[in-house]
Amino acid sequence: MQTIQSDNYPIFFENSIDELVKFIERGKYSKFFVLTDEHTSEYCLPKITDQLNELGNYDLIEINAGEESKNIDFCIGVWKTLIDFEADRKSLMVNLGGGVITDMGGFAASTYKRGIDFVHMPTTLLSQVDASVGGKTGIDVDGIKNIIGTFTQPKAVFIDTDFLETLPPRQILSGLAEMLKHGLILDAVYWNELKSSDLTKPSTAMVHRSVVLKNEVVMEDPTEKNIRKSLNFGHTIGHAVETWALNDKPDSLTHGEAIAIGMICESYLAHKKTGLKAEELNEITSTFNKLYPRFTFSKDIYEELYSIMLKDKKNMDGKVNCTLLSAIGQFNIDNVCTKEELFEALDYYLAG
Amino acid sequence: MQTIQSDNYPIFFENSIDELVKFIERGKYSKFFVLTDEHTSEYCLPKITDQLNELGNYDLIEINAGEESKNIDFCIGVWKTLIDFEADRKSLMVNLGGGVITDMGGFAASTYKRGIDFVHMPTTLLSQVDASVGGKTGIDVDGIKNIIGTFTQPKAVFIDTDFLETLPPRQILSGLAEMLKHGLILDAVYWNELKSSDLTKPSTAMVHRSVVLKNEVVMEDPTEKNIRKSLNFGHTIGHAVETWALNDKPDSLTHGEAIAIGMICESYLAHKKTGLKAEELNEITSTFNKLYPRFTFSKDIYEELYSIMLKDKKNMDGKVNCTLLSAIGQFNIDNVCTKEELFEALDYYLAG
Ligand SMILES: NC(=O)c1ccc[n+]([C@@H]2O[C@H](COP(=O)([O-])OP(=O)(O)OC[C@H]3O[C@@H](n4cnc5c(N)ncnc54)[C@H](O)[C@@H]3O)[C@@H](O)[C@H]2O)c1
Ligand SMILES: NC(=O)c1ccc[n+]([C@@H]2O[C@H](COP(=O)([O-])OP(=O)(O)OC[C@H]3O[C@@H](n4cnc5c(N)ncnc54)[C@H](O)[C@@H]3O)[C@@H](O)[C@H]2O)c1
Ligand SMILES: [Zn+2]
Ligand SMILES: [Zn+2]
Repeated sequence: MQTIQSDNYPIFFENSIDELVKFIERGKYSKFFVLTDEHTSEYCLPKITDQLNELGNYDLIEINAGEESKNIDFCIGVWKTLIDFEADRKSLMVNLGGGVITDMGGFAASTYKRGIDFVHMPTTLLSQVDASVGGKTGIDVDGIKNIIGTFTQPKAVFIDTDFLETLPPRQILSGLAEMLKHGLILDAVYWNELKSSDLTKPSTAMVHRSVVLKNEVVMEDPTEKNIRKSLNFGHTIGHAVETWALNDKPDSLTHGEAIAIGMICESYLAHKKTGLKAEELNEITSTFNKLYPRFTFSKDIYEELYSIMLKDKKNMDGKVNCTLLSAIGQFNIDNVCTKEELFEALDYYLAG
Repeated sequence: MQTIQSDNYPIFFENSIDELVKFIERGKYSKFFVLTDEHTSEYCLPKITDQLNELGNYDLIEINAGEESKNIDFCIGVWKTLIDFEADRKSLMVNLGGGVITDMGGFAASTYKRGIDFVHMPTTLLSQVDASVGGKTGIDVDGIKNIIGTFTQPKAVFIDTDFLETLPPRQILSGLAEMLKHGLILDAVYWNELKSSDLTKPSTAMVHRSVVLKNEVVMEDPTEKNIRKSLNFGHTIGHAVETWALNDKPDSLTHGEAIAIGMICESYLAHKKTGLKAEELNEITSTFNKLYPRFTFSKDIYEELYSIMLKDKKNMDGKVNCTLLSAIGQFNIDNVCTKEELFEALDYYLAG
């Protein structure tokens, strides 16, 4: 599988562990730090420790697993560890984990001493096809997801799909939602291929295809002025549901489960507003409903969801903006949706 | 006084309040926020409120005055206020205050929703000639100054030396130290002019000259790879003394007082190591000793100062790196100094 060239950095797919070692050697770093969570310490770190030990002079920073850790308090903990271990400007941060680790490690590194180098070795499907590509770093404050962050590119990304072997099926499905999204917004052929393949273990080729698609979009529009907004499909409503659910009960929804709900709702809006055909809406709805568990909530929370959407950084001037589809494989950005429309879309999902 | 063109943004010196108003009008911002501290709310805000009120739709964020506020806790407070007041990506942050406000406001804005626009209206001499120019933002964590930050340029800087009328003399002297530094590292003529002028109230022309000098340096080397390091003259030892003093007792030293000490020490090192003549060393030492109060500390703290220097972001690989002078008006970067040399330099100051 070919190395993908992104905005001044490579995304490796072959011999990724060796490539990481070579990268660190060539970089002449004064020292490096490996950021993990409990699970990636247990399942992923052992697969690379021998090679890392040969490089010498590194420290491990471990945080608790889960979105609850992706907040400013843990970030301060990471900064303090860097201070205590005397990280200097020629230090490197290696983020070994899922999107929580790559987002937070990227943010911590991009602000420590006004920015030290960092690389990602993503270990969840979601982080391989999505979080590790595109230069967005971020943490949550006050329960608002990714409200604080920077646009900073890693110096390299090292993808090894072998890491996925230990990933729980629910986490595979979480990443899969983003892959399906890539098909829906950009590539109908890919959507069809994905639908008809074994989705319990996406192939390296499929992961590669998703990264190619996402990378093309972010290269063309790094700071989300226009076409990068295509990637927000499913995310306006999905993020709101996710935020609400996680406030209510940690781990009640994965990111992918939330945006699967969001994609059903926003496909409904697409059908109403931007010409998505009824049979395509049905195809999308039934695909997600087959793959993802039902998640129910009361209509009483609609107002709360709406106020979360208004606070979402994608939205401005007190208006809620959605990326929709005009057909499978064709996105349509900047659709202002009214409160009534959004509530109708939530009704559509709940009626499911 | 001519507007200075920096890295894609203007630095205004005339009709600065009107220019700020025009800037906000032209920017079509959804709303704007004015960040102040207690003192700038009292002394500076009244000078611009009439004009701001005509623009409508703004909110005030006030923090306590002083370096103690430039930390992550207050920064979280600023982020939360932006969240509560529903700042979106088209919001603007106006930093009205000294270096604490411009540094922290710049950092908070550059990371809120991955970056919103901000402008500076610096109200201390130090922030006019130094902090507001060059794109460094930052906050303190664990008492380590500016350890967390970004390189992000403001969209404009509005300098009005009338704000300095209410500034206490001690704060004037603080900014003056940076102006004297600009002369020492870059411009012997300017150093001589400064020395022989009324230093209780530096003229707008002098402020302008300092900004021109600093701006030239940062434009040539925005991320401090080489010549920008010239600006660190006095700061290796100065920062360490400042950090120690503020941990010991808030307000015991201003930034300028600290780097005045640093410049005396580092001029001594320059005499020892990079050819600064004895009479120039004497001229520098006596100039600072005349202007700035003596600050004494025990030799017992040398080791602590040294360990602060090691943690300083300017220093790498466990070595302490100083910018020195080869003559007045000529800097010399990247001089590794040993612990013994640094202690000798501190002795020189204390013997003063
Ligand atoms: N920056 C971006 O562009 C971007 C894009 C999408 C999502 N995100 C962010 O990513 C986060 C979600 O990512 P995620 O789903 O990877 O979350 P995650 O990092 O929490 O990983 C999910 C779970 O899998 C565990 N895990 C990771 N690798 C494993 C492995 N190989 N074997 C066994 N367990 C493993 C983790 O410990 C965790 O418990 C969210 O915070 C989201 O905001 C960012
Ligand atoms: N970003 C950079 O490149 C850079 C460069 C130099 C210094 N700095 C930072 O700047 C900070 C120091 O700046 P500072 O000395 O301006 O500190 P400051 O902002 O604390 O201001 C000093 C005092 O003057 C008060 N004040 C401000 N304007 C006033 C006015 N017009 N009238 C009366 N009182 C007024 C403030 O409330 C404060 O009490 C430090 O944190 C330092 O790290 C940053
Ligand atoms: Zn997503
Ligand atoms: Zn300074």
